[in-house]
Amino acid sequence: MSQFKHLHAVQKLRDLAAKPIDLRSVLAPERIESYLVDNELFTLLYGTERVDEPALDALFELAEETQALEKMAAMQSGAILNKIEGIESENRSVLHTAMRDVFQDRQTAKNARAASDGSLAELNKLKKFLSDNSDRFTDLIQIGIGGSDLGPRALCLALQPFHRKGKKIHFISNVDPDDASAVLDSVDLKRTLAVVVSKSGSTLETLTNEEFVRSRMKSLGLNPSEHFVAVTGEKSPMDDPARYLASFYMWDFVGGRYSATSMVGAVMLGFALGYEQLEQILRGAHAMDLHALTADPRKNLPLISALLGIWNRNFLGYPTVAIIPYSQALHRFPAHLQQLDMESNGKHIDKRGALVDFSTGPVIWGEPGTNGQHSFYQLIHQGTDIIPLEFIGFCQSQRQDDLDIHGTLSQEKLLANLFAQTIALAVGQASQNPNKNFSGNRPSRILLAKKLDPYTLGALLSYYEHKVAFQGFIWNINSFDQEGVQLGKVLAGKILDLFKEKRSGKKGDGFALGDCFLRLCADRSRCNHK
Amino acid sequence: MSQFKHLHAVQKLRDLAAKPIDLRSVLAPERIESYLVDNELFTLLYGTERVDEPALDALFELAEETQALEKMAAMQSGAILNKIEGIESENRSVLHTAMRDVFQDRQTAKNARAASDGSLAELNKLKKFLSDNSDRFTDLIQIGIGGSDLGPRALCLALQPFHRKGKKIHFISNVDPDDASAVLDSVDLKRTLAVVVSKSGSTLETLTNEEFVRSRMKSLGLNPSEHFVAVTGEKSPMDDPARYLASFYMWDFVGGRYSATSMVGAVMLGFALGYEQLEQILRGAHAMDLHALTADPRKNLPLISALLGIWNRNFLGYPTVAIIPYSQALHRFPAHLQQLDMESNGKHIDKRGALVDFSTGPVIWGEPGTNGQHSFYQLIHQGTDIIPLEFIGFCQSQRQDDLDIHGTLSQEKLLANLFAQTIALAVGQASQNPNKNFSGNRPSRILLAKKLDPYTLGALLSYYEHKVAFQGFIWNINSFDQEGVQLGKVLAGKILDLFKEKRSGKKGDGFALGDCFLRLCADRSRCNHK
Repeated sequence: MSQFKHLHAVQKLRDLAAKPIDLRSVLAPERIESYLVDNELFTLLYGTERVDEPALDALFELAEETQALEKMAAMQSGAILNKIEGIESENRSVLHTAMRDVFQDRQTAKNARAASDGSLAELNKLKKFLSDNSDRFTDLIQIGIGGSDLGPRALCLALQPFHRKGKKIHFISNVDPDDASAVLDSVDLKRTLAVVVSKSGSTLETLTNEEFVRSRMKSLGLNPSEHFVAVTGEKSPMDDPARYLASFYMWDFVGGRYSATSMVGAVMLGFALGYEQLEQILRGAHAMDLHALTADPRKNLPLISALLGIWNRNFLGYPTVAIIPYSQALHRFPAHLQQLDMESNGKHIDKRGALVDFSTGPVIWGEPGTNGQHSFYQLIHQGTDIIPLEFIGFCQSQRQDDLDIHGTLSQEKLLANLFAQTIALAVGQASQNPNKNFSGNRPSRILLAKKLDPYTLGALLSYYEHKVAFQGFIWNINSFDQEGVQLGKVLAGKILDLFKEKRSGKKGDGFALGDCFLRLCADRSRCNHK
Repeated sequence: MSQFKHLHAVQKLRDLAAKPIDLRSVLAPERIESYLVDNELFTLLYGTERVDEPALDALFELAEETQALEKMAAMQSGAILNKIEGIESENRSVLHTAMRDVFQDRQTAKNARAASDGSLAELNKLKKFLSDNSDRFTDLIQIGIGGSDLGPRALCLALQPFHRKGKKIHFISNVDPDDASAVLDSVDLKRTLAVVVSKSGSTLETLTNEEFVRSRMKSLGLNPSEHFVAVTGEKSPMDDPARYLASFYMWDFVGGRYSATSMVGAVMLGFALGYEQLEQILRGAHAMDLHALTADPRKNLPLISALLGIWNRNFLGYPTVAIIPYSQALHRFPAHLQQLDMESNGKHIDKRGALVDFSTGPVIWGEPGTNGQHSFYQLIHQGTDIIPLEFIGFCQSQRQDDLDIHGTLSQEKLLANLFAQTIALAVGQASQNPNKNFSGNRPSRILLAKKLDPYTLGALLSYYEHKVAFQGFIWNINSFDQEGVQLGKVLAGKILDLFKEKRSGKKGDGFALGDCFLRLCADRSRCNHK
C-alpha cells in the first residue's frame, strides 16, 4: 500500500467520504458567506462544494501531514524537487517562480537568487530589444508548441484590449503544414518578427515550422536572420547570433508548462502589450507566489483549491474537472490549464518510483460560460456522471463597453448566469415529470475577481500553477517531468524513417506495424469520391 | 432493472468484458488490416480497440436487438422520435437529415418529404439572396449561441482555404459584453451583414447581442434593418420584414446541435464559401446519411463507431472520450462534438421516463494533434485513468503548401505522429525504470480520409451526428431534447430580477441565495489592488 493510503488524514477522509454532506439540505446564504476565503485579488467561494467542517479539518490535516507548505517553500527557494528517488530522473530545481521574483521580498536562497538574477538580466535585455526594435515590426509570429504555445497564447488572447495599436500576434504550433501555411498567407513578412521557442533547440514541430517560415522569407528575398529571435537554452543549437537577431534564455529549471512568465511568453507579450504591461503580469504572478508561500493554510487560495480537488478526486471519486471561465477573453485559458494540470499530475508512480494505488490528476476540460450552458451543461445537470466545476468570474467587464438591454447590463446577465448555475447544480429541482427532475448535490466553486487586467491575469496563472503543485506535493508525485511523452516520439521517428525510405527507394530495418498504416494511407489516398 | 440491462447482448457483453483482449499481445499488421471498415470516403481503423470477434459479434447483436438501424430509418423518414412515453415531452420528428436530402434518392415518407421541400425552398431563397447581395457586404457577423455557433463556427474555420477572397466571418456568441465589443471594434459595420440565429426568437444571449450590434449601427448613422438577416422559426417574433432584410426559416424538427447544415449554418457558409461549396458540404452530409441508413451493420461506419463507444463506456467503464483531429483546420471541431454528444446523450432517463441504471453519454473533449502530444498526452499514456481516443486523420494536407525538411514533408511528420500514438498506446513499453514504463493496452481508433474539403467535412459532420444518434437508440434515451438546461435559465432570470431591483431601488420577492452572491460581488468590486 502507498504512503498516501497510509496517511492518517487519508483514512479519516475516506470515512468522512462515506457520508458527505448533501448540498440540497445545507445550501443557504449563511453557508455561501462563511465558506469563502479571499485575498487582495480573489474571493474563492466553496460553499457549493460537498465539504463540511470535519472534512475541511481533515483536508487541512492532510496538507500538514504531507508538508505541502514546506514543499512550496522548498520549491520557491530552489530545492531539487524535479526528481524521483533511486532511479534515473531529471534532478532539477523547479523555479518558474524565480522568473517573476524580480520585485520586492526576493528569495535569498542561492539557487533561487541565481535564477531570479538570470531572469532580471533577460528582462533587461528584452526591454532594450523592444525599445530598439519597436518601429521595425508590426507583426510577431510565435513558433512553439505545448508550453511554448498554450500558456503564452492564452495570456495574449486574454489581454487583447491591452495590445498596442498596430501590433499583431500570430501563432504557429502544429506540425500540420496547414497551420504554418495559413499564418504565412495572412502576414506581411517584411514587417514580421518570428520568435522561435524551444528549450532544447530540438523540438521536431518547432524546428520544422521555423524552416517553413525561413524558407518563405528567403523566397521573398528577405534575410531570415534579420527577422528571427530565439528563445532557448544558453548554448543550445539555436543559440546562434549568425542566425538570430537575438537569443533570450530559458533554463532547465522552468518546465515548459510553467514557462509563460519566462522569456517563452515574455518576448511575445512584451511586443504585444509593451514592457510595462508585461511587468504587471509578472507583478500579479509574483503576488500570488508570495500568497501561496506565506498565507496560513486556511487562508491560502491555491492550497484550498488543491485540497477541494483532492476531496473530489480521491474521496468522492470524480474523474474529471470542468474549468469554466465566465469571460470570453479567457476562451483559451482552459486549454493551457489542461496541459498544466494533466501533464504535471497525470502520473503513475510516486516520488519513490513506486506505482501509485490511488487516482492522480483528473481530466481537465472546459469552455467559457455562458457558451457552455448551450452546449455540454445538459450532461453536467442531468448526465449519469458527476462533473465538479471550477468557475472563474469577474465583477466588471474588461472593456467596459456595455449596454443596458431590458433593464440589465450584459455583464449582469453574465454574472446572473454564473451564480444561477452554481445554485442550480447544488440544489437541483424535484418534479413529477422525471425529465424535469434535477438530482442536484453537484459540486462547484467560484473564483471571483474584480476585473481581468494584466496584474489579475498574472495572479490567476500563478494560482493554478500552485494549485497543481500543491496537489502533486500531497500525492507525493513528481509534477515537473513528462516521461510519458517519450514513447510516442520514438515511434514517430521510426515511422518517419519509413516515409523517408519510401521516398528514397532504399529499404530500411522495417517496422511492420508502422508500415501497414502507410500502406492503408496510400490506398485511401488513391480513392476518388464523387 | 432497466430494459438495457435485460438485453441478451448486454449480458453477453458483460461476461466478455470481464476478460477483454490485451492489445499488447494481439497487435500486429494483420490485425490492423482486418479490423477496419471503409466506404467511398473514410477508413475506420479499430484494430487498436480492445475488441475481438466474440465482442464484435455481441455488439452487432446489441445493434440488432435494439433495432438501431430500424430507428435510423424511422428517424430519416420523419417518425416522432423526440419524445418520452407517458410524460409531457417535445413530441417531434427529428429531421436534420432532410436539410440535405435535396439531391438524389430523396426520402418519400410524408414528413420527411415536406421537410426536405422546405429545405429546398430555403436553399433557393438563399441562393438568390447571395447573388443579389454578393457585392454589398465584405463582412458577416454570425450572432448565435450553442448550436447556432459551435457547429457553424467549426465548419467555417475548417474551410478557411475555400473562403472567397474579400469575405470575412466573425462570431458573437457569449453574453459577456467583451465578446461583442471586441468583434465590433474589428469590423467596418457599413459593409457588414449580421445574421441573427434563434429558433424561438427568444434566446437571451442572442437577442442581447443583436441589440448590442443594432445600437452600435445606429450610433454610426446606419439603418440596422438594411444589415440584418434573421434565421428563425416561421412566425417567431424575429420573423419581421420591417426589421430584417430577409428571414430564413428553421423548424422544430431540427435540434440546435444538429442544425449546422440547415439555414443556421448555411447562410454564413454560403456567404463565406459561395453557394457551390456550400452545396458540396450538403452533398457530403447526404452521402453519409445514406450510408448510415443503408449500409450493412458490419460495414456501417457510424454504427460501428457507436458500438465501440458503448463497449468502452458501458462494459470497460471509461468515463471520457478524447477526440483528436490530426488537422489544425479542425481545431474547433471537438468543441462542436462536445455539444453534439454531451447535450444529446447526457441523459438520466430512458424513453419510457424511467431513471437509467447504466452510464449514458461520456465527457467528450479534445484538441488537435500534434499539439495535444505536447500537452495532455502525458496523462493519456501514464495517468491512472484510461482515456479512449478517437483520432481523425487525412492522408493529404488541405492547402498542399508543404516543404521537405530533413527528408520528409510536414504532412508526413503529422501522419507519422498519428500512427505512432495509436501504436504506442496499444503496445506500451516495459522498462526497468518505472518512469519509462508504459502500461499500454490503451484503446484508440482512427478515422482516415483523403483530404479535408467541403464534401468530406459534410460527411464527417454527419458521421458524428449518426454515431451519437445510434448510441441514443441503443441506450433507448431521447438524444434530441435538452431539459437539463432549463433550471439554470429559470434561476438566472430570478437573479437578473435582483440586478434590476438593485438598480431601480424597488424591492422584489427576494431570492436570498442569489442575493448573497450579489453582495459578495459588490464587496469584491470595491476592493482595489496595488
